[in-house]
Amino acid sequence: MLNFDKQKYIQVVNGAVQLRGQIEKAVDEVTERGFNNLFFIGSGGAIASMYAYEYLISSISTLPVYAEIAAEFSLMNHKQLSKHSLVILSSLSGTTQETVEAAKYCKKIGAVTIGLSGEAGTPLAELVDYPLINYAENDFAADSVNIQLLYLTSRLLYKQNEFPDYEAFAEQMERIPSILLKVKESTEKKAEQFASKYKDETYHMVVGSGSSFGRAYSYAMCVLEEMQWIRTKSIHAAEFFHGTLEVVDEDTSIILLKGEDETRPLTDRVQKFAEKYTRKLTVFDTADYELEGISGPFRKFISALVIASALQRVSVHLEDKRKHSLDTRKYYRVVEY
Amino acid sequence: MLNFDKQKYIQVVNGAVQLRGQIEKAVDEVTERGFNNLFFIGSGGAIASMYAYEYLISSISTLPVYAEIAAEFSLMNHKQLSKHSLVILSSLSGTTQETVEAAKYCKKIGAVTIGLSGEAGTPLAELVDYPLINYAENDFAADSVNIQLLYLTSRLLYKQNEFPDYEAFAEQMERIPSILLKVKESTEKKAEQFASKYKDETYHMVVGSGSSFGRAYSYAMCVLEEMQWIRTKSIHAAEFFHGTLEVVDEDTSIILLKGEDETRPLTDRVQKFAEKYTRKLTVFDTADYELEGISGPFRKFISALVIASALQRVSVHLEDKRKHSLDTRKYYRVVEY
Repeated sequence: MLNFDKQKYIQVVNGAVQLRGQIEKAVDEVTERGFNNLFFIGSGGAIASMYAYEYLISSISTLPVYAEIAAEFSLMNHKQLSKHSLVILSSLSGTTQETVEAAKYCKKIGAVTIGLSGEAGTPLAELVDYPLINYAENDFAADSVNIQLLYLTSRLLYKQNEFPDYEAFAEQMERIPSILLKVKESTEKKAEQFASKYKDETYHMVVGSGSSFGRAYSYAMCVLEEMQWIRTKSIHAAEFFHGTLEVVDEDTSIILLKGEDETRPLTDRVQKFAEKYTRKLTVFDTADYELEGISGPFRKFISALVIASALQRVSVHLEDKRKHSLDTRKYYRVVEY
Repeated sequence: MLNFDKQKYIQVVNGAVQLRGQIEKAVDEVTERGFNNLFFIGSGGAIASMYAYEYLISSISTLPVYAEIAAEFSLMNHKQLSKHSLVILSSLSGTTQETVEAAKYCKKIGAVTIGLSGEAGTPLAELVDYPLINYAENDFAADSVNIQLLYLTSRLLYKQNEFPDYEAFAEQMERIPSILLKVKESTEKKAEQFASKYKDETYHMVVGSGSSFGRAYSYAMCVLEEMQWIRTKSIHAAEFFHGTLEVVDEDTSIILLKGEDETRPLTDRVQKFAEKYTRKLTVFDTADYELEGISGPFRKFISALVIASALQRVSVHLEDKRKHSLDTRKYYRVVEY
């Protein structure tokens, strides 16, 4: 695979899997202590990854769950936040200012905090009650964070007595590094073809639903816009039909992300439309991957992770074909604003 | 004002104001009966309008509130929905298929439903427990719906003992038709200038936060994309700094919507950035309007309504300068999909 450091990748994803014990201990402790709602808090790619788990929990559990943008959350006085809340925050660098502020705000209110970060000793890791540390760089951050959020979510559901299959799921997740490696390998050719075909494209629509909507939002904003400086529109598959469809013509690139949850009919509908009205449809569908060792009912859980892992190959090939480094920024952490 | 039927407008907004008594009766009855959470459900522009009130309620009330896209909601088995839920649905035509399905789903679960619609006898109006009917066409629909949602929200908060100023607010809202007329009049020149300057623009970023984010999402999708076939990116002011900013250059049109809630510093920050890095910034700020007769603390409540009403003037001038009817569709209700 192009620009792929297998050893580094395996280290990152194994690192995430190895947090299982620590995650179980944290969740069991906070459950013992008791909490009556759950917040996911982050900025940009971090909150985007969390949308999948907000969706999953809403569709499975009676535990009220909220996903909030860190900077807004710190200002808005969200009245559901209390000392009886459990808050999961995430920042790869552990220094994202808005997320660090949000963590401080949660502490002040007295909520219990779990924080995902790429390094120990960072402001976020130091602030939260339960730091989860797994080193990753931008390329594999989504894989790392999604694995941790999956363990967190599934354990939380289990402790709420709403996911009796936890043990089976957590065991199957131990095989996820080699499963994701296969996902990447079997995406490689498609990723290269996509990058070749669309290297000069100036605009992409990225569409998803349910647990894959966050990926659509994030791939558009954090990769195509931030890392490749290409204009995008991310849009929910259901909302696509309430406005955005009108800008589609036969030359409109649509990237459709299909997962395997209850909302799949919504992405089917976009696919049917797009096949008719544009020549530039690209579908990334978790159903195309074997995911050997993952039971059918669990495929819904890992859809967002699988899509994230597959799309990372697209990013690498875009960088290559467009000769535009994924690391170059004009503004972010470059200029003051 | 260009293409403005004052009589029709006054009829629409007065019609919404006159629903006050009916709204109070409905809210008082459902409060008497009891409910433990609130759902806003709609598609496209309808759910977009509701995001403002989801935000307001979250920032004021301990009542758990959720805003969900109708089509996804009907599929996902949202576990917070129960016979103890209050659900507010909205569809101007009263026929939006996904919203009608969602209303059926809520009835099946046994939740109490309130439905906003432009006509009596429509499927939505027939299905819900409390239909609210006020005739409007696309041009003034946002004004009509926002006024109704304001009465609903403020009365709900009042009955939760979380908005003691309800009577003063509701009284001041009776003056809203003439206030909004002045908003439109004082936007007219700016709207025409915007349309002249940007008539050939092929892409706009639309940015908002807090109670104005829904307007940014909706103006981008339901007007610029749906009615003018112009590409857009709607983005939350806080999220703007986590990716989207990188596509900004001096020729990027940014439309910034500023309201007067707690999140205003987030839009200030975008403004400061945009003033430096693009020559094409347009700001619509509720603070620029006098809103005579509305007390300071209530300005936050009506920010989304004021922005919606002002932007309607922009749409009319875009239609004129671009010679592109606001009513023409390529696909929506034109072809089968």
